[in-house]
Amino acid sequence: MIKQIFPSEETPIALPQGFKWAAVEAGIRYSGRPDLALVDAGPEATAAAVFTRNSFAAAPVTVSREIIKSAHGRVRGVVVNAGCANAATGTRGLDAARTMASLAARSVDPRASFPFLVCSTGTIGVHLPMEKIEPAIARASTRLEASKSAFLSMAHAIMTTDTRAKYASRKMEFGGKTVCIAGCAKGSGMIYPRMATLLAFIFTDAGVSPVLLEKCFKPAVDASLNCLTVDGDTSTNDSAIVLASGASGFTIDESAPENVKIFQEGLLDVLQDLTMQLARDGEGATKLIEIHVSGARSFAEARKIALTIANSNLVKTAIHGCDANWGRIACAVGNSGVPIEPEKVKIAFGDLVVFDHGAPCDFSEEKALAILREEYVPVFVDLGLGNESAKAWTCDLTAKYIEINGAYRT
Amino acid sequence: MIKQIFPSEETPIALPQGFKWAAVEAGIRYSGRPDLALVDAGPEATAAAVFTRNSFAAAPVTVSREIIKSAHGRVRGVVVNAGCANAATGTRGLDAARTMASLAARSVDPRASFPFLVCSTGTIGVHLPMEKIEPAIARASTRLEASKSAFLSMAHAIMTTDTRAKYASRKMEFGGKTVCIAGCAKGSGMIYPRMATLLAFIFTDAGVSPVLLEKCFKPAVDASLNCLTVDGDTSTNDSAIVLASGASGFTIDESAPENVKIFQEGLLDVLQDLTMQLARDGEGATKLIEIHVSGARSFAEARKIALTIANSNLVKTAIHGCDANWGRIACAVGNSGVPIEPEKVKIAFGDLVVFDHGAPCDFSEEKALAILREEYVPVFVDLGLGNESAKAWTCDLTAKYIEINGAYRT
Repeated sequence: MIKQIFPSEETPIALPQGFKWAAVEAGIRYSGRPDLALVDAGPEATAAAVFTRNSFAAAPVTVSREIIKSAHGRVRGVVVNAGCANAATGTRGLDAARTMASLAARSVDPRASFPFLVCSTGTIGVHLPMEKIEPAIARASTRLEASKSAFLSMAHAIMTTDTRAKYASRKMEFGGKTVCIAGCAKGSGMIYPRMATLLAFIFTDAGVSPVLLEKCFKPAVDASLNCLTVDGDTSTNDSAIVLASGASGFTIDESAPENVKIFQEGLLDVLQDLTMQLARDGEGATKLIEIHVSGARSFAEARKIALTIANSNLVKTAIHGCDANWGRIACAVGNSGVPIEPEKVKIAFGDLVVFDHGAPCDFSEEKALAILREEYVPVFVDLGLGNESAKAWTCDLTAKYIEINGAYRT
Repeated sequence: MIKQIFPSEETPIALPQGFKWAAVEAGIRYSGRPDLALVDAGPEATAAAVFTRNSFAAAPVTVSREIIKSAHGRVRGVVVNAGCANAATGTRGLDAARTMASLAARSVDPRASFPFLVCSTGTIGVHLPMEKIEPAIARASTRLEASKSAFLSMAHAIMTTDTRAKYASRKMEFGGKTVCIAGCAKGSGMIYPRMATLLAFIFTDAGVSPVLLEKCFKPAVDASLNCLTVDGDTSTNDSAIVLASGASGFTIDESAPENVKIFQEGLLDVLQDLTMQLARDGEGATKLIEIHVSGARSFAEARKIALTIANSNLVKTAIHGCDANWGRIACAVGNSGVPIEPEKVKIAFGDLVVFDHGAPCDFSEEKALAILREEYVPVFVDLGLGNESAKAWTCDLTAKYIEINGAYRT
């Protein structure tokens, strides 16, 4: 069971060395809050990233893809804005994203040999106000700081309809050396990451080659952000980026596979923590729903079923209404496209089995209600077909979601 | 433009000959309204049907599939109940469905040589109360009538969360002979038909062989019910059934392909009419949304994109809020999995173009608002890739949907 989904002010943050952050108010869409952030990962940094599979990928996604490829994973930092997605904006949007990245690189270090990546999030189909972005980047570059508050200011600056800043961190020991991984993420609606998620930034002070960083990052994203859905809509701007500063003095390399494994577990841990925070803060959400699918023939099939359940408006409204309507879960399992045998399926809310061997169980509605009333609702589905499993995370679907999305743009 | 989505009391009904209908109150879940209906299509009737692709297909679906196959499309009638889906009910459910079908066949004609099909709709995971079903079928069989009011009583008896009865009819002339097609349908939530829809019953007095009937019915369903989504959840009980009594004295056969074509157009017309009524009466809906996708390489690709847009909660909440947020439509196009070229895409609300050649247009928000305020909102997407097109139908997503589905079972 989960005790606390979001970090509190008391939650310790393991801040990786070698990073500086800054956030400023550019006034792109919001006022009275920062909406542009800059991260400097230092001259030795490496990076890996995964991006949206949406064919209408936003300009910053196209540009960051080009940059990380042509720089062979040697990246100095990231610049990101909230309030305007710079998506579906044609060639003018591409020019704006390129300008934003190069302004950031030059403002941090005029002689820097490595480029900045660029991310945007917010309304689709609106052009970036470059007259606001340019001075904001200049201002941010003078405020870069290697502090907890600077890291947190970035976590806040990237928010759109998010109600909470989302961040997580882990500390790992390798012999006598300490390595930290910290990350922040934003996203509340238009969330159904496929090969990526909205915006997630992971920072580590381990030294990791770009090739190994990518090798560790992709499977970790696959078992975390790629198991998340709020509303089944994959965004145009999804980007998850990891930056490794190397400032801890400790290098992860493949000659020590046990270290790679520990590092990868740390990455997964931070990413899953962020994923659960993202699900819980889904637009209008009141609950975090965790779907465990076991007894599958493969991880891919288990995840496909878990995500089909997690994407069902009917499952999500039932759980919102604390209704143990397991028939909708069975229906979603049947819709997943994965071949199953209904008579082997088992469904439970927490430890309360409600459906077994193809037939309804006689369960206590009172006990079901007690489980469904919690802020964290675990759902278990066993397929009885194999030994593989997967988890997916989502939230309940509420009237507040409709309210938020019926009047987002205007 | 559509003037009237639902039929009114003045709407003429072209009642096909050779059919008798009855509906009675069995008291399965609802009280004070009929919830069990019987159709007798006469001793010469033929039938064709399409069913859900959900792997958790309900018992009546499994049983009706068996019956229509073993009877080679020679079917006497249909029995249907609302209030209990008889889905996820194991072998006891299969026995109940078989009993229901044979009770209906025997009550209508003890010496009948052809079987009845059986349909159920309502809550998943609950057993049919056979002690209520059995006397209700007996009662219904004594009340069968070839009248408009009997047909309408069936359209009402099959409703669950529907707020309106849905029915449509067309009259066709073949030389001097008149042929009628009439149909009714139910469905409001858990609607994303794939190869079928919730429950739709089509009756015609043409004489049509089972093989030809199936040949005409499947493509008509494909371009109507299979282009509909309310909430992206394919039901366990989807069944669309057509019955041909032959009582008009006119036979449609393949030696006169022009007649087949007219008949097929009539079928499609009735089915599309029902489809639009189903979309408009989606749970909590206030609007009918029609998505036209043109300029596609194939019908299948056009429909896939149209349905991806129609399934987007974000598109549906934006239209609910009368917000011309076309970026969400572009995002859905990009998510469909169909390869597109963003710079060729054009998006319009009614005749108002909002996105063209990969970039936003400068459009009148006032004009957009006037279009979006209507009960019928047509959305046009041209891909600029080919000459094929498709339409999909859905409704807006509202707080009422959440309210209905947060407390359906309890």
